[in-house]
Amino acid sequence: MDTELRHRGGETADNAEDITQAVTTETTKEDDVAPKTTAASSHIPPQVDDILPNLDDKKPLIPPQQDTVPEVLKGLPPRWRNWIIRGIWSIIMVAGFLLIIWIGPLGLVALIMLIQLACFREIINIGYAVYKSQDLPWFRTLSWYFLLCANYFFYGESTKDYFGILVHKDLEFLQPLADYHRFISFTLYVLGFCAFVLSLVKQHYLVQFTLFGWTHVTLLIVVTQSHLLVQCIFEGLIWFLLSTSMIICNDIMAYIFGFFFGRTSLIKLSPKKTWEGFIGAFFSTVLYAFAMAYFLAPYQHFVCPANYDDDLKRITMDCEPSSTFIMTEYNIPVIIRAILGLFGIHQSTIWLYPIQIHALALATFASLVSPFGGFFASGFKRAFKIKDFGDVLPGHGGIMDRFDCQYLMASFLHVYLSSFIRTANPAKLLQQVLQLNPDQQLNVFLQFQEHLIKNGLLKA
Amino acid sequence: MDTELRHRGGETADNAEDITQAVTTETTKEDDVAPKTTAASSHIPPQVDDILPNLDDKKPLIPPQQDTVPEVLKGLPPRWRNWIIRGIWSIIMVAGFLLIIWIGPLGLVALIMLIQLACFREIINIGYAVYKSQDLPWFRTLSWYFLLCANYFFYGESTKDYFGILVHKDLEFLQPLADYHRFISFTLYVLGFCAFVLSLVKQHYLVQFTLFGWTHVTLLIVVTQSHLLVQCIFEGLIWFLLSTSMIICNDIMAYIFGFFFGRTSLIKLSPKKTWEGFIGAFFSTVLYAFAMAYFLAPYQHFVCPANYDDDLKRITMDCEPSSTFIMTEYNIPVIIRAILGLFGIHQSTIWLYPIQIHALALATFASLVSPFGGFFASGFKRAFKIKDFGDVLPGHGGIMDRFDCQYLMASFLHVYLSSFIRTANPAKLLQQVLQLNPDQQLNVFLQFQEHLIKNGLLKA
Repeated sequence: MDTELRHRGGETADNAEDITQAVTTETTKEDDVAPKTTAASSHIPPQVDDILPNLDDKKPLIPPQQDTVPEVLKGLPPRWRNWIIRGIWSIIMVAGFLLIIWIGPLGLVALIMLIQLACFREIINIGYAVYKSQDLPWFRTLSWYFLLCANYFFYGESTKDYFGILVHKDLEFLQPLADYHRFISFTLYVLGFCAFVLSLVKQHYLVQFTLFGWTHVTLLIVVTQSHLLVQCIFEGLIWFLLSTSMIICNDIMAYIFGFFFGRTSLIKLSPKKTWEGFIGAFFSTVLYAFAMAYFLAPYQHFVCPANYDDDLKRITMDCEPSSTFIMTEYNIPVIIRAILGLFGIHQSTIWLYPIQIHALALATFASLVSPFGGFFASGFKRAFKIKDFGDVLPGHGGIMDRFDCQYLMASFLHVYLSSFIRTANPAKLLQQVLQLNPDQQLNVFLQFQEHLIKNGLLKA
Repeated sequence: MDTELRHRGGETADNAEDITQAVTTETTKEDDVAPKTTAASSHIPPQVDDILPNLDDKKPLIPPQQDTVPEVLKGLPPRWRNWIIRGIWSIIMVAGFLLIIWIGPLGLVALIMLIQLACFREIINIGYAVYKSQDLPWFRTLSWYFLLCANYFFYGESTKDYFGILVHKDLEFLQPLADYHRFISFTLYVLGFCAFVLSLVKQHYLVQFTLFGWTHVTLLIVVTQSHLLVQCIFEGLIWFLLSTSMIICNDIMAYIFGFFFGRTSLIKLSPKKTWEGFIGAFFSTVLYAFAMAYFLAPYQHFVCPANYDDDLKRITMDCEPSSTFIMTEYNIPVIIRAILGLFGIHQSTIWLYPIQIHALALATFASLVSPFGGFFASGFKRAFKIKDFGDVLPGHGGIMDRFDCQYLMASFLHVYLSSFIRTANPAKLLQQVLQLNPDQQLNVFLQFQEHLIKNGLLKA
């Protein structure tokens, strides 16, 4: 769970002003720059006004977070008060997270699913508020239905991949669901699509299509990316733990460096972010990842892919660790050797877990690119003039506010694993081969045999 | 190529009035229903007006199609004139299409790619026009860049799957591109994403995010679905030919039945569509599909998956046809037997190609569900008050106007094939197995051998 604190201390108090000011500034600007448009729209009745975002209402779209500050904290200045509230909630989230790791991969999958639901709800609710869609026929139901379809499809695909054997042997009545999974998912989706078309009503066309798009972009961001993360969990907990905790570390360190050394503003979208925080966080995250990989690599619980053990009838994480988690001797690059020489260290090789090197790559992405996910979310919030995505987590805002950077990281982790780490799953491949028709099977077998003999793995 | 004619004869003349009327009606309605909004927006300057669709401008967003009618046709009534123009263009398109089938799968892939580009262009241009984004920094470039990334990713995946061996053997310098395809695609996309975030400008936030969503939904509709179709082409031309021609047949028959018998309006979204056309088209399409499957099934050119022949150094479509294309004796269901009995036909079995039964399933979807793709497109055009997506095809409108139903069908075909027809590709599976590490390979080999012996395919 993400406990990002960032360097935006007294945001609760400050930001509200920020936004009001932004509204005022922009209003003035528009008047200056585009008098023609204003004139044009004054003589034609603004017929689409009530179905399109009219964000200059004084009433905020999403009611601002109600901070119920405990008595003890009331004497403190807001910056510190907020710091303490966020701190306490961060600790609660981290504790809950550790509990779930202890439970294992299925607990994590459930957690990701819950977070995904919460994020979807927050983004969709903004859409409803912005496009004033209270009286739209069916739409609320339809967008949740699409969420259901997307989840059915993605979680089904994962279940099929990883627990296919379980379904095949012990839950045979589920076999048709597995065999025709895509067909069923597609049918479900198409039903929703047709329902959408049938629900179209002349006076709402524009807003209905807008929200259709809104729902699908949300699904694309939230559902597909959490699904990518779920797949990574089954590849070994270490990947999941490393990458999510890197983002948390990066956020906290950016906050701390920004808090103490922050001078130079980084990007207009997030005015509280500084170059000092960004750079400090980069180095901290790289160090953190390198060390964390070292500490986690020796444990099978973290490095082994989840497997359903047919004898024990439960998911196990026991295996012969792959070479990625075995100490290996590396040559130190000449440049680094020269630098070490300056400190009197004369060593030409170093023993590392290969995963430590992968951790460096992940950390680089986590601290240099992932923040763009956060900037994107900030820009989105500013576009729709909202402060936070929600108010579920006191001091933190909505769930989506905590996970904005995690989504981009989840995709990266998935792509990284499938490009550099993941080898095909032998059991799954065998299963696929055995579904070929007899002739093809025999053909594959003979070619396979020939290959093995040629490579000396098998005697002729 | 889709030559749908539908039953909307004199559309050029009629529809323009339709839309003007729609505008007037809606304007009146809005005034009646929502006086509050109008009042509210009159005392607050409408600051977001120039970045949000103001569709009541008298000037159409997309200039209406310029019909340059040849002299010979000028004497005819518009209904017939339009009929002839559309007819001629339909013949041109069908002829071009046949030419491309003769060229083979690669020609078809190129054609789909071109159509996809045209559709993307049309939809994106509507977005630009609607949200008046002429002065948006970078956006035009960025959306085309995203299109490029999506295509690079999808076409790369297909190429890898079907021509992996070719790359492996003869084009070795492309091997890294194949090995790290996902990583490269993701990197390209992320660069675009970061560029988008950096291009955000305060006064354009809202429209920038809207167009970001617009681009992604367009990619989802156009690129992913054409990619699904491309994959189907390699499974055997017959699937592609059957399913695309069914849509064309369904459109033409709906037009003809509607033209002669149309009385009852089908759906408000497309006022020219009738129940009579819909039902007549359903039966015609089912018959057409059943017959067409019968005629195409005996030819290897149509039924064999495309394979790169390493000796001939070209793509071939020779194979031992799978059981789907071999005449099989079926029992006739009791009910149908009873009906046949009434006509004096006493037969309990029938010889069919199994694909003919699949063709019935596809035809049912093509005539009952695919039209919803067309309704969706109609609704979309009405939402944004445009007549057609473009004016490339005289008498037909834009490319997207011809392909609206094909996209849904493409997805269905893909899902249908992967659920009921496609068996794993033996060559691809072997390739994956050979990428395992030696221990795993040996392990898979031994288990495979055991299985084959148990099933009597191999002697112990």
